[in-house]
Amino acid sequence: MSSSPRPIRIAIDCMGGDTAPEVVFQGISLCAKELGPISLQLYGVQAAIEPLVEEIKKDTACKDLFIEVILADDVVTSDMKPKVAVRSHRASSMGLAVMAVREKRADAVLSAGNTGAFMAFSKIMLGTLKGIDRPAIATFLPTSKGQSLVLDLGANAECSGRNLVEFSFMGEALTQACLGISAPSIGLLNIGSENTKGNRIVQEAAEILTKTDLLKNYIGFVEGTDIMAGTVDVVVTDGFTGNVALKTIEGSMRFVKEQVGRAVKKSIGTRISAFILYRTLKKAFTRFDPRIYNGAVLLGLNALAVKSHGNVDAFSFAHALKFTVNVARQDLLTHVKTYVDRWASTEEGTSRE
Amino acid sequence: MSSSPRPIRIAIDCMGGDTAPEVVFQGISLCAKELGPISLQLYGVQAAIEPLVEEIKKDTACKDLFIEVILADDVVTSDMKPKVAVRSHRASSMGLAVMAVREKRADAVLSAGNTGAFMAFSKIMLGTLKGIDRPAIATFLPTSKGQSLVLDLGANAECSGRNLVEFSFMGEALTQACLGISAPSIGLLNIGSENTKGNRIVQEAAEILTKTDLLKNYIGFVEGTDIMAGTVDVVVTDGFTGNVALKTIEGSMRFVKEQVGRAVKKSIGTRISAFILYRTLKKAFTRFDPRIYNGAVLLGLNALAVKSHGNVDAFSFAHALKFTVNVARQDLLTHVKTYVDRWASTEEGTSRE
Repeated sequence: MSSSPRPIRIAIDCMGGDTAPEVVFQGISLCAKELGPISLQLYGVQAAIEPLVEEIKKDTACKDLFIEVILADDVVTSDMKPKVAVRSHRASSMGLAVMAVREKRADAVLSAGNTGAFMAFSKIMLGTLKGIDRPAIATFLPTSKGQSLVLDLGANAECSGRNLVEFSFMGEALTQACLGISAPSIGLLNIGSENTKGNRIVQEAAEILTKTDLLKNYIGFVEGTDIMAGTVDVVVTDGFTGNVALKTIEGSMRFVKEQVGRAVKKSIGTRISAFILYRTLKKAFTRFDPRIYNGAVLLGLNALAVKSHGNVDAFSFAHALKFTVNVARQDLLTHVKTYVDRWASTEEGTSRE
Repeated sequence: MSSSPRPIRIAIDCMGGDTAPEVVFQGISLCAKELGPISLQLYGVQAAIEPLVEEIKKDTACKDLFIEVILADDVVTSDMKPKVAVRSHRASSMGLAVMAVREKRADAVLSAGNTGAFMAFSKIMLGTLKGIDRPAIATFLPTSKGQSLVLDLGANAECSGRNLVEFSFMGEALTQACLGISAPSIGLLNIGSENTKGNRIVQEAAEILTKTDLLKNYIGFVEGTDIMAGTVDVVVTDGFTGNVALKTIEGSMRFVKEQVGRAVKKSIGTRISAFILYRTLKKAFTRFDPRIYNGAVLLGLNALAVKSHGNVDAFSFAHALKFTVNVARQDLLTHVKTYVDRWASTEEGTSRE
């Protein structure tokens, strides 16, 4: 590498995901021009990536990228248990990519592979920020008002009220960084708006947030309907509820598309009209195309780890890559640490349950 | 009343809901012919319902219904706290309607009013079935495969594994009764399919269900995507997650409709095509029109209490009424008691945490 001002360095696990490694390389090519001066470290198995590396070297779209190829002997498979991956597969493309970030040879790691393994590698190798109890998976979703951040989407099946508080301010930091909103509105996901509603951890979190005044714009409770409505910029919940909500949204979208599709197929007249409408409906569905919201941050670690969906096309992977580069540029960590310090200075923040 | 074989008697709180009492009466009129020989007890405030009662008496559609009017001096308002309602408003239309069921003067009660108050009245006046720890709110949702029952939708913000087990077999009983399926498939809502996934209560419930073999067709874990996919006939979860899931589905549907509507409005060409498509899309959206799935049972009480959505039109209220009559005819209680006895005979069922 040259010794000019260091560009952002992204470590990419090229072997992770159902459509890897082809889609990873296609994705890089698709967004290369938008990425600006960055350095990509491509981790993969020789036989699989060598031909793709050759192509990308000839790809004019990628001519301004600094690309480094690191060969791995091993991969993490989609059904591998996290513990097994971490114990015995550190030399996998995923393990090496995360290690690069740990050793500060890269600024961020991106993988579309086995989520459990990726989270395990990231937590163990990168470590959780001092002052944060548990990291959370956070992603942006399309809403009626634009987009909102939702977390935790499944890193923690059980949470305490304090975990929700920490998710809240980490979410505030990420949203400020990504959406340029200085005081993002933040709501705790609940089953009603009155403060007597909900389970113990949500009430605990609400109490702490109200008392400590850590957030710039804490709204209070929001309900399931508020997620897609975009009522708040950040929706905070425990990993179990968040994961169910996210998958429920996916299931609902799929259901609607399927029902509309079935109804349209029933007659020629509707098929003609549908054809005319197709472009318009396509644009509408693009608006909430999950592919452009691909990219979930494991928020709360000492470095940036981003997870792409596993079953993606090039367009989708490109989005995850752009997202990763964008967040890496924001120096999110320093920002989150400011919150952690304030949190640690409160009574609630220092007491350990 | 005459002394001929007693028809099903439904107590209706005519004052509950945003559109009451007009919509209640219109709803009755709409479905009267489909109800068969039933007796309706209409509870309401004189000034509000008297003119509507007069109309319904002249309504030929309702000529085969036996209608009794019971005047109340009081109503439960939409913002009234459950404790206040139960303590000081037993003479409300809601209180009197539930009391009628308690005193076995009616077989079921239906209200579109304040959910918290209705649940409180029902639990206190009707009592929870012996052997059941907590009742659950259960409703049918449209799915890719037809319809599925989902519970608990919010009666219990905190649950134990045993609660989920009880919800499971009550759900099985209700689904057998309503959908005529002898062995409905049942899944526990979780964040993954492996048995190591999920929180403590879900794992506990899975363990008990596997061990005790209480259900005819227990599938295992299902995820958020499976709800609308109709992967199973009954989805079981705690009240917090269930409520969030349900409202998230509502929010997703609303979002899709809004996005499609916005896209369509953008040009004359699409508006014409949309007009042609309108009837077809309307049929598609009817398929999952929440109005035809109106009616949530408070499952686990000693008698039948059904909650209608508050903000309903006549068509929707009519569905809740038809649903109530249908369930009342099935003698659900005896059916659930069979399960309760089997549950009580197991080691897990008898041990109290």
